[in-house]
Amino acid sequence: MFDRLDEQKVMRDPIHQYIHVDYKVIWDCIGAREFQRLRRIHQLGGTFQVYHTAEHSRFGHSLGVYEIVRRMLDEVNGLSARLTEYDQLTVLLAGLLHDLGHGPFSHSFEYIVRVKHEEMTLRIILEDSEINSILSKADKGLPAAVAAVIDHRHPNALLEQMVSSQLDADRMDYLLRDAYFTGTSYGEFDLERVLRTLKVVDQQLVVKETGIHTIEDYIMARYHMYWQVYYHPVARAFEAMLVLLFKRIRDVATDDPLWNSKFPMFARLFDSDMSLDDHFSLDEYSCMYGLYQLAKYDDPILRDLATRIIDRNIFGYIDVKSDAKIEDYLSYAQHYPSAYYLYIDSANQQPYKPYSNNNKQNIYVLGADNEIRRLIDVSNIVQAISYAKNKEDVKLFFPKV
Amino acid sequence: MFDRLDEQKVMRDPIHQYIHVDYKVIWDCIGAREFQRLRRIHQLGGTFQVYHTAEHSRFGHSLGVYEIVRRMLDEVNGLSARLTEYDQLTVLLAGLLHDLGHGPFSHSFEYIVRVKHEEMTLRIILEDSEINSILSKADKGLPAAVAAVIDHRHPNALLEQMVSSQLDADRMDYLLRDAYFTGTSYGEFDLERVLRTLKVVDQQLVVKETGIHTIEDYIMARYHMYWQVYYHPVARAFEAMLVLLFKRIRDVATDDPLWNSKFPMFARLFDSDMSLDDHFSLDEYSCMYGLYQLAKYDDPILRDLATRIIDRNIFGYIDVKSDAKIEDYLSYAQHYPSAYYLYIDSANQQPYKPYSNNNKQNIYVLGADNEIRRLIDVSNIVQAISYAKNKEDVKLFFPKV
Amino acid sequence: MFDRLDEQKVMRDPIHQYIHVDYKVIWDCIGAREFQRLRRIHQLGGTFQVYHTAEHSRFGHSLGVYEIVRRMLDEVNGLSARLTEYDQLTVLLAGLLHDLGHGPFSHSFEYIVRVKHEEMTLRIILEDSEINSILSKADKGLPAAVAAVIDHRHPNALLEQMVSSQLDADRMDYLLRDAYFTGTSYGEFDLERVLRTLKVVDQQLVVKETGIHTIEDYIMARYHMYWQVYYHPVARAFEAMLVLLFKRIRDVATDDPLWNSKFPMFARLFDSDMSLDDHFSLDEYSCMYGLYQLAKYDDPILRDLATRIIDRNIFGYIDVKSDAKIEDYLSYAQHYPSAYYLYIDSANQQPYKPYSNNNKQNIYVLGADNEIRRLIDVSNIVQAISYAKNKEDVKLFFPKV
Amino acid sequence: MFDRLDEQKVMRDPIHQYIHVDYKVIWDCIGAREFQRLRRIHQLGGTFQVYHTAEHSRFGHSLGVYEIVRRMLDEVNGLSARLTEYDQLTVLLAGLLHDLGHGPFSHSFEYIVRVKHEEMTLRIILEDSEINSILSKADKGLPAAVAAVIDHRHPNALLEQMVSSQLDADRMDYLLRDAYFTGTSYGEFDLERVLRTLKVVDQQLVVKETGIHTIEDYIMARYHMYWQVYYHPVARAFEAMLVLLFKRIRDVATDDPLWNSKFPMFARLFDSDMSLDDHFSLDEYSCMYGLYQLAKYDDPILRDLATRIIDRNIFGYIDVKSDAKIEDYLSYAQHYPSAYYLYIDSANQQPYKPYSNNNKQNIYVLGADNEIRRLIDVSNIVQAISYAKNKEDVKLFFPKV
Repeated sequence: MFDRLDEQKVMRDPIHQYIHVDYKVIWDCIGAREFQRLRRIHQLGGTFQVYHTAEHSRFGHSLGVYEIVRRMLDEVNGLSARLTEYDQLTVLLAGLLHDLGHGPFSHSFEYIVRVKHEEMTLRIILEDSEINSILSKADKGLPAAVAAVIDHRHPNALLEQMVSSQLDADRMDYLLRDAYFTGTSYGEFDLERVLRTLKVVDQQLVVKETGIHTIEDYIMARYHMYWQVYYHPVARAFEAMLVLLFKRIRDVATDDPLWNSKFPMFARLFDSDMSLDDHFSLDEYSCMYGLYQLAKYDDPILRDLATRIIDRNIFGYIDVKSDAKIEDYLSYAQHYPSAYYLYIDSANQQPYKPYSNNNKQNIYVLGADNEIRRLIDVSNIVQAISYAKNKEDVKLFFPKV
Repeated sequence: MFDRLDEQKVMRDPIHQYIHVDYKVIWDCIGAREFQRLRRIHQLGGTFQVYHTAEHSRFGHSLGVYEIVRRMLDEVNGLSARLTEYDQLTVLLAGLLHDLGHGPFSHSFEYIVRVKHEEMTLRIILEDSEINSILSKADKGLPAAVAAVIDHRHPNALLEQMVSSQLDADRMDYLLRDAYFTGTSYGEFDLERVLRTLKVVDQQLVVKETGIHTIEDYIMARYHMYWQVYYHPVARAFEAMLVLLFKRIRDVATDDPLWNSKFPMFARLFDSDMSLDDHFSLDEYSCMYGLYQLAKYDDPILRDLATRIIDRNIFGYIDVKSDAKIEDYLSYAQHYPSAYYLYIDSANQQPYKPYSNNNKQNIYVLGADNEIRRLIDVSNIVQAISYAKNKEDVKLFFPKV
Repeated sequence: MFDRLDEQKVMRDPIHQYIHVDYKVIWDCIGAREFQRLRRIHQLGGTFQVYHTAEHSRFGHSLGVYEIVRRMLDEVNGLSARLTEYDQLTVLLAGLLHDLGHGPFSHSFEYIVRVKHEEMTLRIILEDSEINSILSKADKGLPAAVAAVIDHRHPNALLEQMVSSQLDADRMDYLLRDAYFTGTSYGEFDLERVLRTLKVVDQQLVVKETGIHTIEDYIMARYHMYWQVYYHPVARAFEAMLVLLFKRIRDVATDDPLWNSKFPMFARLFDSDMSLDDHFSLDEYSCMYGLYQLAKYDDPILRDLATRIIDRNIFGYIDVKSDAKIEDYLSYAQHYPSAYYLYIDSANQQPYKPYSNNNKQNIYVLGADNEIRRLIDVSNIVQAISYAKNKEDVKLFFPKV
Repeated sequence: MFDRLDEQKVMRDPIHQYIHVDYKVIWDCIGAREFQRLRRIHQLGGTFQVYHTAEHSRFGHSLGVYEIVRRMLDEVNGLSARLTEYDQLTVLLAGLLHDLGHGPFSHSFEYIVRVKHEEMTLRIILEDSEINSILSKADKGLPAAVAAVIDHRHPNALLEQMVSSQLDADRMDYLLRDAYFTGTSYGEFDLERVLRTLKVVDQQLVVKETGIHTIEDYIMARYHMYWQVYYHPVARAFEAMLVLLFKRIRDVATDDPLWNSKFPMFARLFDSDMSLDDHFSLDEYSCMYGLYQLAKYDDPILRDLATRIIDRNIFGYIDVKSDAKIEDYLSYAQHYPSAYYLYIDSANQQPYKPYSNNNKQNIYVLGADNEIRRLIDVSNIVQAISYAKNKEDVKLFFPKV
């Protein structure tokens, strides 16, 4: 039904060896300008300030998620047999396109900006874009189908499980990819074995009991990546500076009628009706160029924060005790207006969430007796970890003297 | 004080890139016949029957332990400064020589045989051997010093910590090595980071608080290697067959005055006064050749068990419930004499033992406040795992019909 | 037509991640005693005396060749479509079974012994063996078909190209495997890309022009592995000692009517009518056990040579000039009978043989213009290398004083 | 003499595991704004358009060159003993800082722009910059010493050999690094073995004869990286588009007095008296932001070329025959002004240059006889390759219809 390429196309990739593309609509989406834009958004925001080689973009990650979905269809026992070609293509596209809506330095960005990246992803797929026109040309209903998977509304729960659950192609690719590009080994787990261990029972992905260790290893990989990479205090300090900068931009822009013409790249940041074109232009290149201008601008706070970011003059931090009040810490930034120079950020992570209102999120295990149980009821390790006192790390970030 | 080689010697090694040797006494020990004999003992006994590439010997592992001790001295903050050259050489040699006493298929073997490999190691170092003469020639007191470390009696507790504790060169090498040769990724952890994370405080190796994740990762690696590799039921079934065979040999040999001349390679197995020469000849080559003879011998049980082992006709197994009695399972081997055809084996593993009578065994953490605490009091993960219900796996092994 | 297993079986392998088995006849062959015997023959003979981790056996290599053939069928453009299922199974089995006939330390062994391993492989497949009965049961004509591929007589030249040509599954697996287990990186090349670069044109495997660099890289990998690993002088010295030992055994055995009862493991070595059972018993375990006996035997030369081999007291060597005579070197072993203590060995290797009488051996390249040319006419590198002065390395081996 | 840090600092790096910093002046240089700017210049220009993960910057490469120099000092036999601490620090800094002068998309850029990156590097080190002030503070003569090494004028030839010769830290790092980030295996070689194989004789780095294969492997790695990565036609097409765009910018800017105020980021491109500040602002972020503006500008050629670059609408190409004239190809861009839409680029590469006027560039081999010979006189492979017909690849790039 869907056109295939004359010859399979491949793209070299360090994580998956090759990304394999058979369908024309996939190939066309990869070439679309909204997808190419993902090359201009770092996968890990400011983490490259700590792990200096973590300079990879969401472009490679998006291809990787697609490739894992493709391998699932190929290698997971009984999966492709349960899915129509239409559903298969839908889930491949959902994997490929799920990150389209990200803005620059997403984490910091979304603290301040109204529009969430999930909504933008849906808009790019559904509204007037090159992606939408490619999908629609392949099949009129395709944009809506792909959007439904991303928006957790697709009638076939299997599709959502594949791209957005506790054991999905998204997490699997980013753990492996971020481990590779940071140069740590924490995120490594045995992808091939995970795929071999999955099975479809009653339209649900389950893990065979014999594969529990592989899944435990994957869950520990996640845990370690969070604490070693994603929550690294210096990366969080860098992001805190961006949040404070965006906050200052918002406050200054509100009062300055000429702001938009002076800083066109920051013109639409706070508009709830940002157009797709505005969003397209908003990437880390334009954002950084904006910072260069701010570093010469006459607002001293913007000038200072921008210069710090450009020159990597990163904030320091201290641990915040649970019973502390912000006043206790004011001395840390006494020479600075605290609204723009103090930031509290709390990180905490449960490696596996045992309970979830959304059953599609959980990991289920198929026993030798053909009973299906929750992972937490079968794995001592997952149980121990999940019920452990939550590790929490609250830090106050402030300018080093 | 100790002679150095004119030029550093290196041996290529997949785990450590190179094994580096600077001291003459180390190089001579590597060339000694008792050390070369380790090439004829598999590192993982019968595990190559499951992981077909796990054919590596105790020779490479022994070099690897030595190399990690060498790197500790080189890279661990403050370590070599606290040790005399004499102590440094002592611990290098203890790492190199700690496995000399192993017999063929040690695990199975020691169920039946009186002599333990630890004792044999001490005897080879202390009694009349090429190793002893090399050590003595380097310094008269060296054999006793090396033996003291291996026997947990050395006055400097640091040395024992380096080669025999919960975070020692022995475990570190075998996890990495066994992972490499089985082709699993479970045993991988970040060796370089572990070394960087260690520090000496009050003549004790401690882990800096910032390195806790690296240690958690190492402990999980151990946990997974146990369940995925070391306790693999098929490897245990193979070892069960060896135990039963050795048992039958013992029973038959007792009644047969000609046994020793018929099976010289099995002559000294059960003598408590085994000589070093007897031990030297006892390796997996002679053991396997003995099996070829047994496969043609006139005792039907020995013939049958030996043939099964040679042709990899491995026993099956079932889980044993905690409240079961052996009679419940007799039917599994009804055509066979149960003394030689039924075997119950229990595997259980705690990834980290929080309490130990031997303080040198524990892992301690140095906090930012310079306090030293037990790992279990600092790491949620280790805590959770250590207090989790112990995973136990009891299996009955029996001939498949 | 051929029975498939209920569920695909996999075996963990560090080179290929997994060996995948779908056909029952393949699985049964792997379980056969003649195939299991390959665990008892080192892949690289005495090379583990130099690269101490090169302890891997022909068992893993044989599985690896099978796996590459399987991947060729799966991944090479147009290949499986040109082959009947019968031919596919034939070539899978030829890959799996091609090394069955090897004896202990094959290289040294075949200098002395009459029977070549290729002939023994054919006999095991065609005569009365467990392998033959498994093949025959699957299909009466299968043993003959598999033997024809191995013996270069199969009517379909494609099958031979896949398992025995200058770019075949055998070479590909051993380069990767030997590199992995020695811990060198010389043998590495991009297997996945090689497979993607192959294509079938006119019942012939050809390389697409765009993949020439990948093939050049593979040819250089071969060149380096030969000089760095396979021709390492210490490994050759070890093998020289084995050749001399076997020679002495032959000479002594001829004169001693009781030899066969004293050394049953060396009884059939020189019989041209060795039975399959004799061959089955002849492995490196029995051979080494024989050496232990020889080390205590009353012929001083055998005693000496055996002890040297066991204790790794390896011969030294010097380069032999092209115009030298053996007398020039006699002084090197003046205390020893030169027939058993001097050995000259010549190593030379052409990384790629441009001309071959056997067209099936050559590598051909498919140009963008659809013309097929010889690799050497297209690749500057291969041309340069092939016409370079042959590197030759002649060495005399002798006992170190 | 030079201040050391209280504790060694390390930075995680996938190629070298860690970058190790002991000297304060090194650490300060890494923090300097001109060094941090290297994060904003891709190591491989537009190659990430082909190998999508080649998004790494010159920042990591510069650290890597430094680290290899550091390892040379540590591991190369006899090297550090021949160098004063001052020379050691000089060469470490030369390795670290050698790429400071690069502009955005250097290769394309330098076709058009007057200032060469080597000159800019020297200016940043010698003129008024944060780097200069850090170096001068450590020692007054340091900027001149470091510049002398980079400018091939340092009296101690060893220093230049280490950072800029046919076997230098620069090439070694970029081959390994570019291989890692593209995900190819072509650039891999055995760095540790190369370092072990080097030796200092008569103030010259030489290769020990026993290490020739390692060096051959390195030279082949270089050869393959050139053809597979650096000269990839699609990357060259992307760069051709940039060259054409820069050319158009130059032509338009000359005629437009308002250009500089409209496009400040492209204001100083063609000034021979570019200031260090101008250079600092000129990175790939500002360059790309300029492209976004050009994509909306009223010059149709600039608009078109900029849009093509942003949306990866890359030129096609054909091979140019050696006897062809440009007119033969005009039809390829008939709808376009040929000055901005046709580009001929010639790639050719000799893997090893046998003769060089600069002796410091060559690779020399130390024979067993203690004679020093040129690599090409000792290695058949290098000889064969060097005298092979030069591979040349001339392509015409033009807009796809």
